[in-house]
Amino acid sequence: MVRSSDIRPNEVAVELPAATDAGLLFIGTIRTPWTARPDCPRQGRLDGPVCRIELHPLWLPALDGIEQYERIEVLYWLHQARRDLVRQSPASDGRTRGTFALRSPVRPNPIGSSLVALVGRTPSGLEVRGLDCLDGTPLVDLKPDRCQFTPLPE
Amino acid sequence: MVRSSDIRPNEVAVELPAATDAGLLFIGTIRTPWTARPDCPRQGRLDGPVCRIELHPLWLPALDGIEQYERIEVLYWLHQARRDLVRQSPASDGRTRGTFALRSPVRPNPIGSSLVALVGRTPSGLEVRGLDCLDGTPLVDLKPDRCQFTPLPE
Repeated sequence: MVRSSDIRPNEVAVELPAATDAGLLFIGTIRTPWTARPDCPRQGRLDGPVCRIELHPLWLPALDGIEQYERIEVLYWLHQARRDLVRQSPASDGRTRGTFALRSPVRPNPIGSSLVALVGRTPSGLEVRGLDCLDGTPLVDLKPDRCQFTPLPE
Repeated sequence: MVRSSDIRPNEVAVELPAATDAGLLFIGTIRTPWTARPDCPRQGRLDGPVCRIELHPLWLPALDGIEQYERIEVLYWLHQARRDLVRQSPASDGRTRGTFALRSPVRPNPIGSSLVALVGRTPSGLEVRGLDCLDGTPLVDLKPDRCQFTPLPE
């Protein structure tokens, strides 16, 4: 999504709290074909280009067993997004909607979530289709798709 | 999920990085019927009990327009989960799987994601069905379900 640091007509920003409440660990990096925000697709497609998910070596053992799932939920940190808008105008036409009624990267916690198709494992991580984020986006989590995952007995 | 601070047979922990990479803002609190981890369902159901999502007042304006969606993605912070396991044994039977092949709350970034049915808005937030988390869980994000959301033109 194209997002300058300026506010568009009728968008509403708030003053963010001074302190944050929890800390995220970036567990890897996402490599995609898109190096500028205007080039990113508005939403990923399962027939989109193959992208690479590169894990930090510390977390590679945590992939074991993931290959049994065709669909994986990917959470990532939209590191270029501002966080202070409560109303946004994606079309820049003066009409706004609340941030939680949009899937815009601009949100108090700029976490993107995509459902991707697993193409395969690599020595450093995964290859997948279905992402929409910038090359270099920090990785936050990987989970089996909730529809494919059956909770194991305790 | 029941999770003591002990490691089960064959589970593998790593030493977490000393510093975190980004900060989360807790934007509200989730109220559910479950006050102890053993009581939580293993996965939410759309016909489960009504739960309340209470937004901090700062973020209430960001809800505007959300009522047009029947399904909403909810991200929350699993505040009681440890973060250092790369292999886990949900059944405590000595067999383990990688953390990213599980939807366990125990993960380097303990963010839960649920797809919920919107029951309605309240003065302080939303009522929804489909959650599985503890009462008092901090809220991180709300988004329209990706299947129902059509990106708006830039």
